[in-house]
Amino acid sequence: MQKIIPFTGRLTKAESQLWITALQQAMTEFKIAPLSELSELEAAKIDVAIVANPDPNELTKLKNLKWIHSVWAGVEGLLQSNIRHEIDIVRLIDSNLAQVMSEAALAATMFIHRDMPLYQSQQTESIWHQHKVTLSKDRNIGILGIGELGLKVGQNLVKNGFQVAGWGRSKRDTSMYGITTMHGKAGLKSLLQNSEILIILLPLTPDTRGLMNDKRLTQLPQGASVINFARGPILEEKALLRQLDSGYLAHAVLDVFDQEPLPSQHPYWSHNKITVWPHIAAPTDRESAARIVSANIRRYFESNQLPQIVDRENHY
Amino acid sequence: MQKIIPFTGRLTKAESQLWITALQQAMTEFKIAPLSELSELEAAKIDVAIVANPDPNELTKLKNLKWIHSVWAGVEGLLQSNIRHEIDIVRLIDSNLAQVMSEAALAATMFIHRDMPLYQSQQTESIWHQHKVTLSKDRNIGILGIGELGLKVGQNLVKNGFQVAGWGRSKRDTSMYGITTMHGKAGLKSLLQNSEILIILLPLTPDTRGLMNDKRLTQLPQGASVINFARGPILEEKALLRQLDSGYLAHAVLDVFDQEPLPSQHPYWSHNKITVWPHIAAPTDRESAARIVSANIRRYFESNQLPQIVDRENHY
Repeated sequence: MQKIIPFTGRLTKAESQLWITALQQAMTEFKIAPLSELSELEAAKIDVAIVANPDPNELTKLKNLKWIHSVWAGVEGLLQSNIRHEIDIVRLIDSNLAQVMSEAALAATMFIHRDMPLYQSQQTESIWHQHKVTLSKDRNIGILGIGELGLKVGQNLVKNGFQVAGWGRSKRDTSMYGITTMHGKAGLKSLLQNSEILIILLPLTPDTRGLMNDKRLTQLPQGASVINFARGPILEEKALLRQLDSGYLAHAVLDVFDQEPLPSQHPYWSHNKITVWPHIAAPTDRESAARIVSANIRRYFESNQLPQIVDRENHY
Repeated sequence: MQKIIPFTGRLTKAESQLWITALQQAMTEFKIAPLSELSELEAAKIDVAIVANPDPNELTKLKNLKWIHSVWAGVEGLLQSNIRHEIDIVRLIDSNLAQVMSEAALAATMFIHRDMPLYQSQQTESIWHQHKVTLSKDRNIGILGIGELGLKVGQNLVKNGFQVAGWGRSKRDTSMYGITTMHGKAGLKSLLQNSEILIILLPLTPDTRGLMNDKRLTQLPQGASVINFARGPILEEKALLRQLDSGYLAHAVLDVFDQEPLPSQHPYWSHNKITVWPHIAAPTDRESAARIVSANIRRYFESNQLPQIVDRENHY
């Protein structure tokens, strides 16, 4: 009999079905089934489940669950949930994702670097006015969160001639990539003070929630711009609006928000200093994710090896 | 007595003065003077003048003029004028310019590549809708005009993972840069058919004026976008509007126009498929240009050597 791998997530029915189909195609030796359809007997035998922002209460049904594999990279919902601590969490690590994210970060950076928001608002008023051009070698970029993804993004910017600095919670030497990385409280202030363009790539944790408040936004140089590709709550919405409206900050490119989809009445939509992206900086590619998840699950059943698990202490 | 180097150009008085000041600072051994202020006797002794889109009739005053140095890279106005054929024309070649232009081309390319025009128009209607992401390795870029500048722009795009092809009037092997270059009529059609993003970097000549008309714009694949960083008249304004309005082309980033500044009533300003830049893709840096011009003039007087002159047959 085929082994059952349950799938569960707080998704629309259509989206769930797309995931189940993609996963089933990638791992024909198993039967991928919605968790809700499992009998009590079947549920008791499950040791691994595939999840996409699951309801933790539903997982309690799986009495012998050993680990779960998220089809997404971000697992902050799971980490903040009441899911049993003995269950290991594996998040999606897709090397393709780093390339997609690097290109998104380059696009948003070049947009700001070459004053495109400024020319865009001039265009709405038919204003022909030239501003001095800055070369990438004279442009300071700061990357908040210099993990795997942040480092790739930074390397791509270095390759394009930018001056790149990074900040991470713990000490890390990235000088071989041409990136100065700072850490700790003092390091954060120093990074912000030197970032004309700040790219947020931190995971959402209790420490990073609300990190970019008025105080830290005004540690950036006047006229700086902010790119948030991480999670909405890291950048305080009201603080950002205050600093854009006062003219202290120049522009923001936002891919993530406190609430997604961004509510249609939200002030961001019509703000001429905010570029809204509908969470597309680095979308999960379903087929690519299904392949990675299937390879990890196959290895587990063949050799009892788990992929790298999420560090619950550090929240990522 | 100090040798006089006249300066002339159809510029505002303020702009002329900025040029004269910058040139004077770069070459203190000469006296830089407005051409209009020279006596007939002084004018007869001049063998080199510095120009910025000059009135050719004014140059006739300089009976013994041997060559003129433009402070700009584009000299199509001079080439189409009735300026005496024995006068050599030198245009500005600023290596910095290629870097500035490469960054501008990357900015405009990434903007289109990552669907930013689409998300921009979604934003005006508060629409949260995600489109499939394409990686640079799957994106075909065509460069129309693969001279010194076009090649630099292409190399920078190759470095960022794009598939780049070029087209030039004459045969050129650029395969060592990872760029396939085509030439001739058949080559042009083949380049256009494969360009999802077309970057125009051709000089304006009788051959290139009106080159991108309806016929050639519709040789691009449906949904393609166009970037014009060369000269306005190469891309037919009415044809471009037709192909954008019909939905055949997706977007255009335009830095150059038939008339500059772009007239305030021009339909481009309010067109949501056109990004208007006020000729800032690669603006001449006055100080840098003054340094280059002064070095060339100094070398001429010291060793009677002229810099590379413009080929009047080929118009560049």
